[in-house]
Amino acid sequence: MSPTPEIRKDTVNNSFVILSPTRSKRPSDFKSKSNPNPNPSSQSTTCPFCAGNEHQCAPEIFRSPEHGRWKVRCIENLYPALSRDVNNEGGDFSGSGVVTSGFGFHDVIIETPEHEVKLSSLDKEGVKDVLLAYKKRVAQLCAVDAIRYVQVFKNHGASAGASMSHSHSQILALPVLPTTASTRLDSMKQYHNQTGKCILCDIQTDQLLIDKSTHFISIAPFASTFAFETWIVPCYHSSHFHELDEDKAIDLGGLLKLTLQKLSVQLNDPPYNLMIHTSPVKVTPAESPYTHWYIQIVPQLSTIGGFEMGTGCYINPVFPEDAAKILRVVEVPNK
Amino acid sequence: MSPTPEIRKDTVNNSFVILSPTRSKRPSDFKSKSNPNPNPSSQSTTCPFCAGNEHQCAPEIFRSPEHGRWKVRCIENLYPALSRDVNNEGGDFSGSGVVTSGFGFHDVIIETPEHEVKLSSLDKEGVKDVLLAYKKRVAQLCAVDAIRYVQVFKNHGASAGASMSHSHSQILALPVLPTTASTRLDSMKQYHNQTGKCILCDIQTDQLLIDKSTHFISIAPFASTFAFETWIVPCYHSSHFHELDEDKAIDLGGLLKLTLQKLSVQLNDPPYNLMIHTSPVKVTPAESPYTHWYIQIVPQLSTIGGFEMGTGCYINPVFPEDAAKILRVVEVPNK
Repeated sequence: MSPTPEIRKDTVNNSFVILSPTRSKRPSDFKSKSNPNPNPSSQSTTCPFCAGNEHQCAPEIFRSPEHGRWKVRCIENLYPALSRDVNNEGGDFSGSGVVTSGFGFHDVIIETPEHEVKLSSLDKEGVKDVLLAYKKRVAQLCAVDAIRYVQVFKNHGASAGASMSHSHSQILALPVLPTTASTRLDSMKQYHNQTGKCILCDIQTDQLLIDKSTHFISIAPFASTFAFETWIVPCYHSSHFHELDEDKAIDLGGLLKLTLQKLSVQLNDPPYNLMIHTSPVKVTPAESPYTHWYIQIVPQLSTIGGFEMGTGCYINPVFPEDAAKILRVVEVPNK
Repeated sequence: MSPTPEIRKDTVNNSFVILSPTRSKRPSDFKSKSNPNPNPSSQSTTCPFCAGNEHQCAPEIFRSPEHGRWKVRCIENLYPALSRDVNNEGGDFSGSGVVTSGFGFHDVIIETPEHEVKLSSLDKEGVKDVLLAYKKRVAQLCAVDAIRYVQVFKNHGASAGASMSHSHSQILALPVLPTTASTRLDSMKQYHNQTGKCILCDIQTDQLLIDKSTHFISIAPFASTFAFETWIVPCYHSSHFHELDEDKAIDLGGLLKLTLQKLSVQLNDPPYNLMIHTSPVKVTPAESPYTHWYIQIVPQLSTIGGFEMGTGCYINPVFPEDAAKILRVVEVPNK
C-alpha cells in the first residue's frame, strides 16, 4: 500500500512540495529513459571543447595548469546571455525603473580536454581541479563592482539543457540579486532569528543522510522538489562557495564524484542539473552567521507542467527517506 | 545586428528575466520541433476520456449539459497528487511544523467528448463551456473550508507534461498558499501602496498589445519569461477568475481561441502550458482593490536548465515587443 501524500515546506527556500507516491512504481523502479548525450555525432575533430581545437572557442580566461597539457579551461561563452561589453547602467528595480542593460558575464568551464570523459569519470583530483576552477572564476567575478550574484551550474544531457556533449559547466554573473537568492536569504534570516542557529548547520539528517566525508554530507533534502534530488552541504559554516580551500576541495571532489556515480548507477545515467547555491556577493557581517552555501543536484526524470509553473510547488513521487535509503547502499565502480 | 540584452523585472511576480536575442535566429523563425501529441496510438475505443468510455474514468463530479450528449465533463483524477480522503490536519508551516497531510483535490476537466478535437478547435461557445466548467468547479472547491488556493492549468503535449492526448485541463485545490501566489499578492500590494492603482488595471500595453475583445486584452508581458509567452488580462477589475459571468465567458472564449490559434499557426502547434493565476481563496476587503486574475500561456520552445532552476531567472531569446508585433498580424482559419 502506498503511503498517503504529504505536503512539506522547504524552510531553506520557502517553497512547498507535494510528496505523492505513484501507485504503479516503487522508488527503486525510477530510471531515466533519456539519452543524456545531446550530440552523439560530435567527434574530437569538430568539438571546440576538445584539446587541439582551442582556436574554435571564444577567448580563454585561464587554464589549469597554466603550462603543459591543460586539465581544465575557463573560457567566455561564444553565445553569452549577458554582455561584458555594455555599460552597466545600474538600473533601479525598486520602483518603476524595471529595466537595466544586460551587463554581466557568461563563462564556460571545460572540465576535461577529452571528449568522452564525464565529470563523474574524473578521479577525485580531477573533480577537485574543476571545483578550484569554479572557485577562481567566481572570486574574479565577485571582485567586479556591479556584480551582485554568481550562479555556477552544470547541465548534463540535452533534456537538462546542455547544447554541447563535451563535459562542461557554466558561470553567470548578474548585476541583480535573483529572486531565489533573496528568498533564501530571507528564509535563512528568519530561521536564525527564531532559533539562533544557521539553518544548514542545523539541518536534520536522521533518515536523509546518504554519505559523509570529512567536511561534507550528501543528503536527500526533507522537502525534495524532484525524485532523487540530492544536496551536498558543508558541515562547517561558510557563506560563500569560493571560500573553499584546496584541502576541502579534494574532500568535496571525492563526495561529488561518489554522488554523481551513485545517481548514474541507480537512475541509468540520467540527464541532470547541478547548481551551486552560494550567498549574495556582498554579504554583511550581520548576515554571515546565517548564510551557508550548498550544492543541489537534480536528476531529470519527469517533465515540468502547468501546475509547477503556476504554483512553484512541485509534485515529487519519491519520498526523500526512500531515495536516501536507496542511494546509501548503491555500489559504484572504483569507489 | 542583434539588440543588446536587457534585464527586466516582472513587477507582478517579482522576478527577473534576461532578454537575450540569439544571433542565429530572427524572432519569426522560432518554431516548435516537438510533436505535441503524447499518445498518438490512442483510439476512441481505448481512451477513457472519449464519449462512451465514461465507465473507465474515476468518478464524475458533474457534466455539462446535465442531460443529453455531454460537451464537458468534470471528473476526479484517477491518479490524484493530493487526497480528498485524508484528514486535513491543518499543519502549521510557520515554525518548525513543516509538514501536513496531503489533503486536497485533484480534478480533470474533459474539454470535449471527441478524441481529435483540441481546445483551440472548439468554437467560441465550446471554449466558453470549458471556462464555465472551470468556474463551477473552482467555486465548489473554494467553498471547502481548508482550501487556500485553487490552480487551474492545462498541459498540451507530452513535453509540456500531458500524459493523455485527449484534450483536458486539471484543477488542483491546495490547503496551503503556494509561494508564487503569496509573492504575487505581496507585489500587487506594494504597487498599490506606491501608486494607488491595481497593477493589472494599470498594465502598459503600448507595443505589447496583441488583441483586444470587449472585456479582455491579450499581451506579450513586458518581462516575458519565455519566447512568445502571452497573458490574457481582464480589462475590468476582478480578484478571482470564478467571478466570470456568462457574458464575459463567451467574450473570453473568443479571445482565448484566437490566441491559441495564433500561437499554433505561428509556432507550428507547440506544446504549451496554460495557467489561470487567480487570488487566494480568502481575499480580505483590504486586498480586493489590488488583486486581479489573469491567464498565462507559455509555448514550450526550449528546455529549462540549471541557471533557470538555480536563480528563478529565465533567459528569453525573443523580446516581447517583437513577439507582440508578430502575433498581432498572424492570420488564423475561421477567425
